Amino acid sequence: MGSKWEVSVFLYVLVFVVIEASIGAQAARRALLQPKPDPADAAATARWLVSQNFWGTLRHVVSFSDGLPNKGQGIPYFYLTNLDVTARNAMKDARSSFAVSEIALGSCGKADPQNPTCAKLTLSGKLKLVDKNSKEGEFAKAALFSKHPEMKGWPNDHDFLFFKLEIENLFLIDWFGGAKPLTVEQYLHPRK
Amino acid sequence: MGSKWEVSVFLYVLVFVVIEASIGAQAARRALLQPKPDPADAAATARWLVSQNFWGTLRHVVSFSDGLPNKGQGIPYFYLTNLDVTARNAMKDARSSFAVSEIALGSCGKADPQNPTCAKLTLSGKLKLVDKNSKEGEFAKAALFSKHPEMKGWPNDHDFLFFKLEIENLFLIDWFGGAKPLTVEQYLHPRK
Repeated sequence: MGSKWEVSVFLYVLVFVVIEASIGAQAARRALLQPKPDPADAAATARWLVSQNFWGTLRHVVSFSDGLPNKGQGIPYFYLTNLDVTARNAMKDARSSFAVSEIALGSCGKADPQNPTCAKLTLSGKLKLVDKNSKEGEFAKAALFSKHPEMKGWPNDHDFLFFKLEIENLFLIDWFGGAKPLTVEQYLHPRK
Repeated sequence: MGSKWEVSVFLYVLVFVVIEASIGAQAARRALLQPKPDPADAAATARWLVSQNFWGTLRHVVSFSDGLPNKGQGIPYFYLTNLDVTARNAMKDARSSFAVSEIALGSCGKADPQNPTCAKLTLSGKLKLVDKNSKEGEFAKAALFSKHPEMKGWPNDHDFLFFKLEIENLFLIDWFGGAKPLTVEQYLHPRK
């Protein structure tokens, strides 16, 4: 009889722990993930992709940030070592493109990554070195180190430098009907 | 008294359902994800990244496959519409690079996406059209449609074509010490 109560108490605790863990993980994901904007608003969708992602492809897969969490300004900043070819290439030929996708956010449901309802954005332009002692260098540092706390401890002797992509062109797929028309001006200064 | 039993039965069922759902999801993920090879084996690591990923960046984010699940041959195949710039650009200038990363597999733990312990691979070479009526075309179709079942239903009037990346160079980061030396021959014919 006592054992029945023990089983009940054990089950209560187990259910509580399992459900709490599940809700906790979901809450953490929700905190990171703002809801996806309406596909009719191309600028907001593109800004959402850049704000919510924390890595993308700049020829190689790299970390990036466009600002403090949920306070991004749309320009991707990078922290690349001079030892890496991406940074060395940028010194020679600054033309670059940088791609992010909704698939990396986990919010495409069952849609295939290439399905047009699963949004993807490619920014192309020039990769520019950012002076770490400038105001923009401070912004880049705060933007990157807040989203990538591990960067604070990356080795000094690897000669890490701040870079940004100076955006010249945007290619956004979100929903059917081909790439969305979107200017750099619309992207950098979207209507609220 | 009956109600205590009802509560116990309800809790039993609830615990069972929650735990089953959790184990089912983990099993599905494990089935997809083969264990990561030893960082000392560059070819195996590169082949693992290509075999286990199902999307990557070919300037834009795209779906791909290198063979039937866990039977890949290392060459990425794509199913691109002629309406899309990636395919149109390939017709003009075939030089392309294609990037995949372990971060997309979810097995990097707490490591930052740019941390060298989180493997990343960029294949560069030429994007080539594959004749859909050839033997290779049949291979590409089986490879893509098995990993991306949605592709079977993609609209005929969008003029989808099979492409492959003819690999000329590999850039693999896995663990510390910079890019791993890895030839195309080593990648395509790894020692078992």
